[in-house]
Amino acid sequence: MRNIVKIPLAVAGFMALATTFATAGQDSERAKIETVLQTYESALNASDTEKVMSVYAADGVFMPQNRPSQVGAKDIRNAYTGIFKAINLNIRFKLAEVRTIAPDWAFARSNSAGTITINATGKKKAAASQELFVLRKNTRGNWKIARYSFSTTLAPSS
Amino acid sequence: MRNIVKIPLAVAGFMALATTFATAGQDSERAKIETVLQTYESALNASDTEKVMSVYAADGVFMPQNRPSQVGAKDIRNAYTGIFKAINLNIRFKLAEVRTIAPDWAFARSNSAGTITINATGKKKAAASQELFVLRKNTRGNWKIARYSFSTTLAPSS
Repeated sequence: MRNIVKIPLAVAGFMALATTFATAGQDSERAKIETVLQTYESALNASDTEKVMSVYAADGVFMPQNRPSQVGAKDIRNAYTGIFKAINLNIRFKLAEVRTIAPDWAFARSNSAGTITINATGKKKAAASQELFVLRKNTRGNWKIARYSFSTTLAPSS
Repeated sequence: MRNIVKIPLAVAGFMALATTFATAGQDSERAKIETVLQTYESALNASDTEKVMSVYAADGVFMPQNRPSQVGAKDIRNAYTGIFKAINLNIRFKLAEVRTIAPDWAFARSNSAGTITINATGKKKAAASQELFVLRKNTRGNWKIARYSFSTTLAPSS
């Protein structure tokens, strides 16, 4: 009888431990992904194209509102260079969710708010957007933005 | 010698077969996802909210341009009802990619083009957008839209 009781307890203990490790592992991945998105936020606010590129996968796709989808590092770099020439961003991202869905894939959703300055005129306007990121962990173990779509949540100005 | 040659060939044969099955399985899942997105396209063009809802996960998130993110079936239904009251769509989706990234997760990217009619005025305008879908296979084996973000690719009108 003693053994019968002991074995399930040992199994339950192991399972609880395994669950703890799995959760801790996911939390650790989520923390890494949050750091990537914080780097992206700071790169946007610094108009720093190369810092932006550091968080993108080489075969990433950037889907900016009012422009066609930009596929691959060369086109993504050109798009951000153009955007940073036109505008200066001062925004904060608020994460709505970060979800790992495979060992090397995750997605994240956020809302951002702040101000956009039109560089040509110095005119400022309010900005509020929603973002959907698909992220992939590369062979070095670093999470990168693989696909990224966003849009304004503000009503059209016209 | 004969055995040495035969075993690797048998292994290679099995591996080729396994690869074929894996590819066929992925193709089959991709085909199912394409059908879901075709259903979504036809639901948009028919202004059919319930048909839209049939392709969404119950805990889905719809991220429409110019509106806040809509989380869950109730808010998603209200958003599409409002959109279909305001506009009538006549658009075609062109898939850019469909990628299964886990047994029950996938993402898809597309471009859409056509016309939007403003119901209040009857005025038509050109539409061109890019779409990013995250899809999840539910316990019944049906792929559903779990997250969906899109934005226009046209330059701002103002």
